[in-house]
Order: sequence, then C-alpha cells, then structure tokens
Amino acid sequence: MNLPHHHGPGPDDTGHADTGLDVVGIGNALVDVLSHEHDAFVDELGLNRGAMTLIDEDRAHALYDAMGPGVEISGGSAANTIVGIASFGGRAAYIGKVRDDQLGAVFRHDIRANGVQFDNPFATSGPSTGRCLIVVTPDAQRTMNTYLGASSFLGPDDVDAALVAAAKVVYLEGYLFDLPPAQEAYWKASRVAHDAGREVSLTLSDSFCVERHLDAWRELVRDQVDLLFANESEICALYGGDFDDALQQVRSDVAVAALTRSEHGSVIVAGDEVHVVPAHPVDQLVDTTGAGDLYAAGFLAAYTSGHDLATCGRLGSIAAAEVISHIGARPEVRLADLAGSVLDA
Amino acid sequence: MNLPHHHGPGPDDTGHADTGLDVVGIGNALVDVLSHEHDAFVDELGLNRGAMTLIDEDRAHALYDAMGPGVEISGGSAANTIVGIASFGGRAAYIGKVRDDQLGAVFRHDIRANGVQFDNPFATSGPSTGRCLIVVTPDAQRTMNTYLGASSFLGPDDVDAALVAAAKVVYLEGYLFDLPPAQEAYWKASRVAHDAGREVSLTLSDSFCVERHLDAWRELVRDQVDLLFANESEICALYGGDFDDALQQVRSDVAVAALTRSEHGSVIVAGDEVHVVPAHPVDQLVDTTGAGDLYAAGFLAAYTSGHDLATCGRLGSIAAAEVISHIGARPEVRLADLAGSVLDA
Repeated sequence: MNLPHHHGPGPDDTGHADTGLDVVGIGNALVDVLSHEHDAFVDELGLNRGAMTLIDEDRAHALYDAMGPGVEISGGSAANTIVGIASFGGRAAYIGKVRDDQLGAVFRHDIRANGVQFDNPFATSGPSTGRCLIVVTPDAQRTMNTYLGASSFLGPDDVDAALVAAAKVVYLEGYLFDLPPAQEAYWKASRVAHDAGREVSLTLSDSFCVERHLDAWRELVRDQVDLLFANESEICALYGGDFDDALQQVRSDVAVAALTRSEHGSVIVAGDEVHVVPAHPVDQLVDTTGAGDLYAAGFLAAYTSGHDLATCGRLGSIAAAEVISHIGARPEVRLADLAGSVLDA
Repeated sequence: MNLPHHHGPGPDDTGHADTGLDVVGIGNALVDVLSHEHDAFVDELGLNRGAMTLIDEDRAHALYDAMGPGVEISGGSAANTIVGIASFGGRAAYIGKVRDDQLGAVFRHDIRANGVQFDNPFATSGPSTGRCLIVVTPDAQRTMNTYLGASSFLGPDDVDAALVAAAKVVYLEGYLFDLPPAQEAYWKASRVAHDAGREVSLTLSDSFCVERHLDAWRELVRDQVDLLFANESEICALYGGDFDDALQQVRSDVAVAALTRSEHGSVIVAGDEVHVVPAHPVDQLVDTTGAGDLYAAGFLAAYTSGHDLATCGRLGSIAAAEVISHIGARPEVRLADLAGSVLDA
C-alpha cells in the first residue's frame, strides 16, 4: 500500500521537476457506435443489460446488422476519462492501440483535438480498430458490446515508461484486464510509476470483469493501487460481501477509494476519513454512457491540482452530470467552465 | 413540362401496378463529421459560411486536423431525404456510391437500418467513402466542406432503370450536378421515370452549385423536372432576379415548386395555386444541417400518399423542425408519429 498525501499530489508535492503531465491513462482505444433501441431489443439479442460484454468479430457484425442507425463517437473508458481531464484544463496523455484505418484515424483525431497527448503508432496489421456497440434503452441505460479489435494487442512494449514516470498519476482501466498482455502492461506501468514516486489509480470498470479475474484484481489492488474507482456492484464483487463490508476492507487496501452510487452520488474513503458527496442535478437524463469515466475525470483533475477529497468528489459529480445529459461519453462543453464555482469556493 | 395531378400521384393515380416504391433518391453518399466551432474558426480557415464547398483530399485532411472532436453520422442530402420518407412510413430506395471501407459500411448499415432499399455494390477501388466535414457555429448554422471521394464516381451505369421506373417519384440532389457523369445519370433517370409515367423531383441544393452550372440546371429544370425544391437564394440564383420574379418564372417551368424560406416557412406554387405554409415551432435550434433535406422528405411522403399541397408543406415543416432540434441531418424519432395529427386533420 502506498500512502499519498490526502490532498493529492499538487504541483510541488512530488519532489519532481514539473515535467508537464497530470495524468496518463491506459485503456482500450475504441470508437463507440450508439443506437437507441426498445427494451425488447436487449432481450431478443440476448444482451447483458447495463453491463459490458466482450464479443468477437462475427457477433459484432451480427449485432451491428440488427441495430438501428447509429452515431459514431470516439470512446474507450480510460480515453473518455483522459479527455475529461484535459477538458478541465489538466495535462493528460493516453496510451492505447488503434489500426491504420478510418476509425483509427477518427479515434486519434478526436483524442488529440481534445488536447490529449497520444503518440502510440497505428498498428499496420491485425484486426481493425476496436468498436463498442452501445444500445441505449428508453431508461437512458447503456448496454455495451465490445469488439476489442486492435486495442486488444496492447502489451508492456506499448507502455512508454518515460511518459508514465512524467505523470503525477497513471490511470488504469479495468476493462483491459481481460487480456494477459494488458495485465503485464499494467504491472509494468504501476512499477514504473511507483519507482518514479508517482501514484497509481485504477477503475474496476465492470463487476463481471472483476469476477472473471478476481485473484489478479485483488493482487493488483493490494500491491499497487493508491487510488481506486469503483461503483457499488464492482466493489462488492471485489470483496465478496455487501457495500459496508467492502467499504471497511477497501480502506486497508488503498489510500483513497472513490465509490460511486449512481443517483446517490459517491462515497470517498481515505483511512479514517469518509466523505459523502451528492450527485449533481441533471435536467434531462439522456444516456448514462461514460458516467463513471467522467466522474473519474473530475476527481483526478481536482486531485492532481492539489484539492481536498470532497472537492475531488464534487468535480466528479459535475462531470458525470454533464456527460449523461447527452448522447456519447465525451463532454460536449469545456468542463473547466463548469468547474469554476466549485474550485473558487 | 410535365403536369402531374396537383394532389400528387396517389396509390391508384398512376395507372401502374403498385410495385412497392414511393420515392427513389439519387445523390452523394456521404458520412457527415460534425464539430462545434467558434465563429472565428470559419473565418480563420477561410470557409464559406452557410454554404457547401467541395474540397479535395488534402484540404479535407487539413481541415479535419484543425477541427475539434467530431461526431460521425451518416448523411448525404438526398440520402437524408430518403431516410426521412422511410421514417414517415414511405417506401423508399436510394442510389449512391460508397467504397468497401469502414465508413462505407457505416453508410450502408444506417440507410438500410432506416428501412431504405440500397443495393449499389461497394466500390472496390478508387477513393475512400466520401465525407462532409460540417462546422456548426453557435448560431446553429452549418458550414459544409465535402470531400466527395467514392460518391463522385456515380454515373449512368449505377442508375438501375427498373428501380427508377418502379417509384412514383425519382428525387435528384443538386449537389451531384458538379460532376458530368452524374449529370448524365440524372438525364437517364429523368427519361426512365417519364417513360414509365413517373414524376421527377429535384432540389437545387446550393446557390453556388446553381451558379456553377446555370445553363445545365435551367435545361434540366425546364425539360425534365415536375416538382422542384429550392430555398430563396437558390431559386433566385436559377432565375437571376428577386424572389417575386423567380416565383413568376418557376410556375411556367415546373408543375409544382416548393420554395423554403427558413424560419418563414415555405411557399408552394402550382400553376395559379399558391400556398403559404408557416414553419413549425422549434423548442431549441441546435443544428440546421438537413433542414431542407427533411422538408423535402415530409413533402414527398405526403405527396406520394395523395395528400394536397398544403398538407405536403405542413409535413415538410414538421420534419424540418425535428431535424434542426438536434445534431445531425437524420431524424431521431419516427416521423410517422409526428405526422399523425396533420394527416388525420
């Protein structure tokens, strides 16, 4: 267990020269394809409502054929978070893999246009750029079906150690944990970060993903993670009990845990410190895709700027509220403009 | 000049067996890339505000690099119209050209998922699927920059004569007129349609496009067009005078002209008959992309169902209002549900 300052590693807290990065994220580089469907569609196609399911290329084609007209927006869980951090004014970089095809060009364009450093070269062979087929039902719930494609080839060699060492926090996406080379990449990134005196943050991403790799998750969380993001079902899956049990256990495993509870906001635990943060009000709930990703964005943007944990949670709530008020998992407004009042207070 | 029934060619008006199609559209098959930019962006990049400008691949790359993060939605002017007709419950087909690449697959998926028949095979060589880079400014105005790519290779051989002969109306998109093979395709489609006792409709699309090919336009309109769609600047460009002059001239050239005037609604002229139709109210004006396309969709859906011209205009207004209330040029709701009250009245 690593114990960071509770107020986050501010510009002068780390003892490092300011090399210019707040957060570097590692994850599945995906383009989202979103369509609106009736509830019956989810059942008829045998989808796992509200979850993320990995699918192969044949299934991706079959599901896409069955879906209605779509909208394509660059996505990927950690990529959404990193874009959110940049939108708050944070200095951010991303590590992920796309191919030299049209959707790969779209992914790279969009993340760079958001001000994120993204230097991984295009894969020139192998499967095409990964896609997440997202079915949005009338209740604004999203059901995700991911064809990983090129993104699944991420391994330790793709992790630029200098980039990781240069960032105050490295942010790891749980979804990547389905792939052994990516698990290796995470261990490498975690060691590099800690050797450089940096912090490691992780989101559990999905309770089914946690259950698929329970031992590997527990080992990584206990040994390497300083700052953990999870929702209720994910943290319960990790510790096997109810939410109160998990809350007790996680505080001995990680320095800070930010646990999100949908419309009930979040609970932040750091040793004996507990903060209960309400959700930010939303005029119209349109599409919950990216809610957790953007909560992490707001939290990390505040955290790496040296704000207290309650402020981190409040910024997380603000960013999550923005992203669920429209289609797609990337912010549509400059989040720094929304943050002003919170950070000034 | 061909004189159709003023009440439109209803199911039993044409003397043909009902072969199952209301409208077949021909146009540039494009995927739209939309981004929100400040007004200064339009000036700095030297774009033609509010217009459609053809750009080559190099310019497309340079402009895309300068644009912010985008959203990809299938588009193309006539394709949007045809999708709108299908959304009203009309039986519709589309003729256009995309390549066997990711965006080509997206275009084909989306138009078919909207219930439109689309059988043109993928091009297997030549430029990639065409894209329209659309800059949306804070006033909701769209500035379009089109890299035609594969769509520009459409010629007479791509026009399935049996398909055109089977539809009550063939709908032609003015934008395609920039290319000689496409002009030939239009003449072929018009002759096939008239030989089969069908009607030819055309949208002028863009005043600059009209000015680029003025003589060719006038000849086609006078000799082949039964039903003309245009906005104020386009119809003035075609006839060289002011709106009142144009209104007088167009009634001797075509049987029906539907002239749109943005927030002032539309004027429909058919011989001595004139209908002034108000615009449909919009809660929030978000993006004017597709307003003209969807007006034509509503008009043609009503027209091919045998409704009177005033009802055609009202359905056009309803469809245009839906599409400008959100991002993108394709309807987000089933237009048939919005049309109910008008058609019942």
